[in-house]
Amino acid sequence: MRAAFYEGDRRFRIGSAAVPTPAAAEALLRVRRVGICGTDLHIFQGHLDHRIPKGGVIGHETLAEIAEAPAASGFHPHERVVVEPLRTCGECRACRMGAAYLCYRLRVLGVEEPGGMQEYWAVPTARLLRVPATLGDDEAAVIEPLAVATHDVRRAQVKAGDAVVVVGGGPIGALIAMVARHRGARVLVSEINPFRIEILRKLRVDVAEPDHDLVRVVEAWTGGDGADVVFEVTGNPAAVRVMTQLVRVWGTISMVAIHGEPLPVDLYRFFARELTMHGSRLYAREDWEEAITLASAGAVSLAPLVTHRLPLASLQHGMEEALRGGPVMKVLIDLDA
Amino acid sequence: MRAAFYEGDRRFRIGSAAVPTPAAAEALLRVRRVGICGTDLHIFQGHLDHRIPKGGVIGHETLAEIAEAPAASGFHPHERVVVEPLRTCGECRACRMGAAYLCYRLRVLGVEEPGGMQEYWAVPTARLLRVPATLGDDEAAVIEPLAVATHDVRRAQVKAGDAVVVVGGGPIGALIAMVARHRGARVLVSEINPFRIEILRKLRVDVAEPDHDLVRVVEAWTGGDGADVVFEVTGNPAAVRVMTQLVRVWGTISMVAIHGEPLPVDLYRFFARELTMHGSRLYAREDWEEAITLASAGAVSLAPLVTHRLPLASLQHGMEEALRGGPVMKVLIDLDA
Repeated sequence: MRAAFYEGDRRFRIGSAAVPTPAAAEALLRVRRVGICGTDLHIFQGHLDHRIPKGGVIGHETLAEIAEAPAASGFHPHERVVVEPLRTCGECRACRMGAAYLCYRLRVLGVEEPGGMQEYWAVPTARLLRVPATLGDDEAAVIEPLAVATHDVRRAQVKAGDAVVVVGGGPIGALIAMVARHRGARVLVSEINPFRIEILRKLRVDVAEPDHDLVRVVEAWTGGDGADVVFEVTGNPAAVRVMTQLVRVWGTISMVAIHGEPLPVDLYRFFARELTMHGSRLYAREDWEEAITLASAGAVSLAPLVTHRLPLASLQHGMEEALRGGPVMKVLIDLDA
Repeated sequence: MRAAFYEGDRRFRIGSAAVPTPAAAEALLRVRRVGICGTDLHIFQGHLDHRIPKGGVIGHETLAEIAEAPAASGFHPHERVVVEPLRTCGECRACRMGAAYLCYRLRVLGVEEPGGMQEYWAVPTARLLRVPATLGDDEAAVIEPLAVATHDVRRAQVKAGDAVVVVGGGPIGALIAMVARHRGARVLVSEINPFRIEILRKLRVDVAEPDHDLVRVVEAWTGGDGADVVFEVTGNPAAVRVMTQLVRVWGTISMVAIHGEPLPVDLYRFFARELTMHGSRLYAREDWEEAITLASAGAVSLAPLVTHRLPLASLQHGMEEALRGGPVMKVLIDLDA
């Protein structure tokens, strides 16, 4: 079978490998779509070389079909599934307290363990979720980032009537905006990329004028109060500088972005307004279930986010395009092609 | 009457002034004790010159006696009272949502408005609380910082069995430690001042060895898990660097200290462990009530914290001593002397 191997130094090699043999309680999947995610771009740039083996197979946003599954699993050949790409230890403090997705010894399929950038993939059946017929293949491949967004919105306790600011309108920011809107919140997204702004507007998401001062825009938009919830989804130090200025007293900052280096934060503002900031990472099973429900009910639109569909042979090109930014939102690798 | 006036440039002048005339719904108090607080030291150093008028009267940690009070107030001459030193607008978002102590137009008695460093003081009767006979005068003067501590511990939702680390063992840190212990938490304080360490140990508060690496100490102390709650009470950038390393998955950082400048924070740790940080400021009425209850029941020891009692004429000296650090915990100004 064909697979893509991470060679380090911003290179992927397309080569061949033996079809994996599933262990007990694993299914063999035929992979059909794999999305390129921000984490994959970190891998591409070498930031996660301490976590990913050289020659490793990445890819954790997937849509697949069952090729073989143990009878006891209840899955049957040709059923479409998405994969919760986590392997947890079950013993650490995080696992014991019900935060298994934050396992102190977490292994992510597509990072520490083989991911979906291969034609066949062996995955524990406990990590599979069925895809309803109402969802197209490309849409189903965006369920994983949607589960990130449902998790983020749930953890931030967004409720009807809240004024929510999403700083960063890439795929995750756009999905957070749509989920928060579905909860009845008023949502404003801050984004500077004109291509992404156009997609957001087509999704009827309000976008702050990129050349205006965001602090003043949010102040005016909330009648001077400040936002109830702010999501930081950019990973940009400028967003971290401004985020504390956007939030009302007792308001919430959700830290969704990955910041590799410590960054200056206005802690006085935390004190003065008794702000809360929490990190938000990955997802629990219920976030996946909510993602599938929202997507299949049409409460969140996924298809407009998919701007590129490329064959596996073009993975290198897809990574470069996604990293460059510009006219790109979600890049999918299509293993059917 | 005598009063102390803030002259700017690290100077207080002791002078005389007319006894204030209370407005309707105000009592005239005879002030007896005033504590010097971290905020007062900020004022002394000129950091709050934008908030405090030149010639202003500071002091917000007070014990006083009723001199005169409106009959309808229920207060009678010679009753001992403490003062919740806040004036709020009642109209802003904070007031409307029940966070009046975070009022967007908050005026603090002893900062924006006259405080207790004067023999007589006119204060709204709604801001007075009676002091039980079980509490000595010096102890009663420490009720205000104890209300800060009960607020901090309540907001951090400390519960029995929690592993709590308090970074900074000054008066507020020591009080937080005692309140958290009373809630049934295991408490460890990090402090480097040997004089303060000795007081903490007399209060049977565990103190981390100051020459050991706090991250390793807390790791060992929690069996590798990390602390449930960490209070940052130092105002020191080194504490902000280390605080994110001390907390377990889903754990809480309470930002009690005032940091004038944005400081580098490890936001990756927030993401990876889904940490929460919130600011904690001042107090609600219930925090005062809890403070009085705990102090009068002996659940928290206040007297050992009072290391200096000076007459009003020595305010300048008291400020200098408190600012220098060294063998000092709580400095009280005694207006009876």
